[in-house]
Amino acid sequence: MTINLEPIGTVRTARTDLSDDYWGGLESRIELDEAAYGPDALAGITDFSHVEVIFHFDQVPLDKIVAGARHPRGNTDWPKIGIFAQRGKNRPNRLGLTICRVLGVDGATLIVEGLDAVEGTPVVDLKPVMAEFAPRGAVRQPGWVAELMADYWLEESSG
Amino acid sequence: MTINLEPIGTVRTARTDLSDDYWGGLESRIELDEAAYGPDALAGITDFSHVEVIFHFDQVPLDKIVAGARHPRGNTDWPKIGIFAQRGKNRPNRLGLTICRVLGVDGATLIVEGLDAVEGTPVVDLKPVMAEFAPRGAVRQPGWVAELMADYWLEESSG
Repeated sequence: MTINLEPIGTVRTARTDLSDDYWGGLESRIELDEAAYGPDALAGITDFSHVEVIFHFDQVPLDKIVAGARHPRGNTDWPKIGIFAQRGKNRPNRLGLTICRVLGVDGATLIVEGLDAVEGTPVVDLKPVMAEFAPRGAVRQPGWVAELMADYWLEESSG
Repeated sequence: MTINLEPIGTVRTARTDLSDDYWGGLESRIELDEAAYGPDALAGITDFSHVEVIFHFDQVPLDKIVAGARHPRGNTDWPKIGIFAQRGKNRPNRLGLTICRVLGVDGATLIVEGLDAVEGTPVVDLKPVMAEFAPRGAVRQPGWVAELMADYWLEESSG
């Protein structure tokens, strides 16, 4: 029962480097597919501070996808973790999901900050962040996450 | 450039009612596809309090999909809003996305609370909620959202 998605748009950014860290401060344009969408598809989006972007890690080769457990980033200092208990890109269906700051709209293009996707990445959905969909109850996570994320949102120039 | 997804699992819940509200307190089982995944795919997930579930609104007819702007839930008390500035299910690619509380694991089945998807819904990804991926900066949203969400997370028995 395959599900077929059509990209709704494409990421335009200076970044082409797929490496894991230093995504902070990056500004990206999400250009909607002009054959399917006009500016009305984004009407009202700048009343929200943040948007969830669902995208496709299209540059991950199919033979690199992990279906079981692995050390995050291959680092054996961290435990073996199931692919659905980590956010790495080598995952079934290769979907990425990141909350970005809305900077503005330019016609049928959404401008965001903090999208960890490279130039040309296909986008499959945009959803506004609503406080009512935030985690209900306190958030708890294992210790390896803070180590893994230490440099993630730093700016590239600091690398 | 179609993207093909294979469901990773299926939602099992008592709820079959597609209506918009009263999703609070609902417990669901996400049964991974046993031909593709074993319990190791979920290893470590109970160290996280919450998980993001990406699913497919497979019961939405294709001819109900909105590509432009509409009043949320058809309610003209609220402004016309672009489909990518609302979270309604009649959207391009019909992807749903909800943060759920992790209750536990039973073999290759994840048990969650707060999943707003009906019995039989295909699931296409699970990602652990990490504090580092929360919205960076304060969250702001328009006034209609609180009205729309007023009864969303109430329990069904209170409806």
